[in-house]
Amino acid sequence: MRAALMYGAGDVRVENVPDSVIKLPTDALVRITASCVCGTDLWPYASMKPEDGPARMGHEFIGIVEDTGSEVTSVKRGDLVVSPWTISDNTCEFCREGLHTSCAHPEANFWDGEAEEGGQAEAIRVPLADGTLVKLPVAADSALIPSLLTLCDAFATGHHAAVSGGVDGRTRVTVIGDGAVGLMAVLSAKRLGAEQIILMGRHQVRTDLGREFGATDVVAARGEAGIEEVRELTGGHGSHVVLEAVGTMPAYQQALGIVRPGGVISRVGAPQYEEAPIGFGSLFRHNIRLAGGPSPARAYIEELMPDILEGTIEPGKVFDVTTDLDGVPAGYKDMADRKSLKVLVKP
Amino acid sequence: MRAALMYGAGDVRVENVPDSVIKLPTDALVRITASCVCGTDLWPYASMKPEDGPARMGHEFIGIVEDTGSEVTSVKRGDLVVSPWTISDNTCEFCREGLHTSCAHPEANFWDGEAEEGGQAEAIRVPLADGTLVKLPVAADSALIPSLLTLCDAFATGHHAAVSGGVDGRTRVTVIGDGAVGLMAVLSAKRLGAEQIILMGRHQVRTDLGREFGATDVVAARGEAGIEEVRELTGGHGSHVVLEAVGTMPAYQQALGIVRPGGVISRVGAPQYEEAPIGFGSLFRHNIRLAGGPSPARAYIEELMPDILEGTIEPGKVFDVTTDLDGVPAGYKDMADRKSLKVLVKP
Repeated sequence: MRAALMYGAGDVRVENVPDSVIKLPTDALVRITASCVCGTDLWPYASMKPEDGPARMGHEFIGIVEDTGSEVTSVKRGDLVVSPWTISDNTCEFCREGLHTSCAHPEANFWDGEAEEGGQAEAIRVPLADGTLVKLPVAADSALIPSLLTLCDAFATGHHAAVSGGVDGRTRVTVIGDGAVGLMAVLSAKRLGAEQIILMGRHQVRTDLGREFGATDVVAARGEAGIEEVRELTGGHGSHVVLEAVGTMPAYQQALGIVRPGGVISRVGAPQYEEAPIGFGSLFRHNIRLAGGPSPARAYIEELMPDILEGTIEPGKVFDVTTDLDGVPAGYKDMADRKSLKVLVKP
Repeated sequence: MRAALMYGAGDVRVENVPDSVIKLPTDALVRITASCVCGTDLWPYASMKPEDGPARMGHEFIGIVEDTGSEVTSVKRGDLVVSPWTISDNTCEFCREGLHTSCAHPEANFWDGEAEEGGQAEAIRVPLADGTLVKLPVAADSALIPSLLTLCDAFATGHHAAVSGGVDGRTRVTVIGDGAVGLMAVLSAKRLGAEQIILMGRHQVRTDLGREFGATDVVAARGEAGIEEVRELTGGHGSHVVLEAVGTMPAYQQALGIVRPGGVISRVGAPQYEEAPIGFGSLFRHNIRLAGGPSPARAYIEELMPDILEGTIEPGKVFDVTTDLDGVPAGYKDMADRKSLKVLVKP
């Protein structure tokens, strides 16, 4: 079968790889019908060393179950299923609390941690299929597929940012980052009823989509000028909730500058730093809280799906390009060059 | 009048200072009947440079109102009152949310930020008296005074740690630090119904008091051994809530080691560091949250007082020494040497 492999920074190739097959009785084999490239795929695309490759890529996919191990009961051959970006048993104490990203099962993993499988491929072996996969009540060619595909990660991650930040009808929210996750954070804050949603971003096509998703204000300025503008928009004291969807130190510093006393910075952009200011002069003095982490997408899929099926929201609008597997290398390049927002892949 | 002044590290003196007097129509003048030395007073006692002194000391006191400015309406001459460790108007948008430590009034301040006043003295000018002071329904010589005095800071701060950490009947709590605030955090976690309360501390007199306050387990070990022991006590995964009542980097690292995935580190020990690990390998990977800050004691006084008046709790047990003003320098020394837990001062 064919799959995308990353050989190093800037070097993605589509090649023949051994066919994915059932290995354990809890596995399912899924023929992938829709996949995509994630913003986090761009980190290794920018920095991966050749000695760490080649690596299978892709952690978001929808597909048709082709085969199941003997112990799988929740999905069967022919079902259309969606996978969150992590593998989990959905039964351990963490999964029961909705923290599937900390699943205690020995086979639990991030898809990116699976060496021999990836979502940017024709097929995939899914461990812990009962715990991981969710059946979709539509056909593989439904017009809803792009939106349903965002349940794997982007929308689930934006939702996680908003939930972790405690967004509700009384909150003023600022979203840092106009990538797919930032825009999904806007949509999620809107869905949870936020009073004001300020989107910080400077790519107008994206911020226009942000306005469509519910942003009430857009701030293109960065640094001190951006902080000043957000403070003005929030009556001087800053934003109750800051959804940080980038992961860089400047984004964190931006968040510190615009968060209101007693407010919360909710991070879902994987931090590209380990140490950062959290002492008296940054978080402590005004009881600023820090929340967030990898999104337990599996916990949210059933909750978020109805709004998509009913057409209330259309998160799939973040896909601005559709390609086949052969177009994946160009898809990475266009996303890295910010020519594309998010690339949908139909293998 | 007489007052304690700090001239530099290890150098506290009791001297004559100008009498405190009413300056503004919103002031009250309070004759202090009970005060104390705080753990945070020990930071400058360890490190203050002579050129930064002399500084008036003390931010916790109970006293009798001796005079009031023309605009003060909530307290009158002869009232026994307690002051939180900060000055606030109790009416601004932050105070209305219970965040009195971020009060927006221009005269709002920490008592430690008032150059010409201090609680370790015979009298004190209280700005924003209506917003700051709370009337006590007992006499100045009541046996409840030590417990009521903890409402100024120690108990209010332990309570803030527990509230910020979201302690309830389903939580396993670990408290780092067996100082007065750590012990008050134990008492507060118990009061909020925590299922398990592990106290990390190595001074047996203090940890014994911790057990009396509600600790179910005591861990004397530190570092990796302490982390291991807490993990064993919590079924392997760590503590839902860690109340960090020390403020040093080793205490923060201890907290990182023992907090459960999805859990929260609530800090009330003023951080003696600015940068610290918060990236993928520390907070982010398992959705660990960071909460806490300076306690808005004023927000909690009315809520906590009834349990003291009814005798349900006796936080005043943290005072193991009582002295007069002349004994204040020795009180600092004994607390710094860990001979005393907390010194009550009767001017």
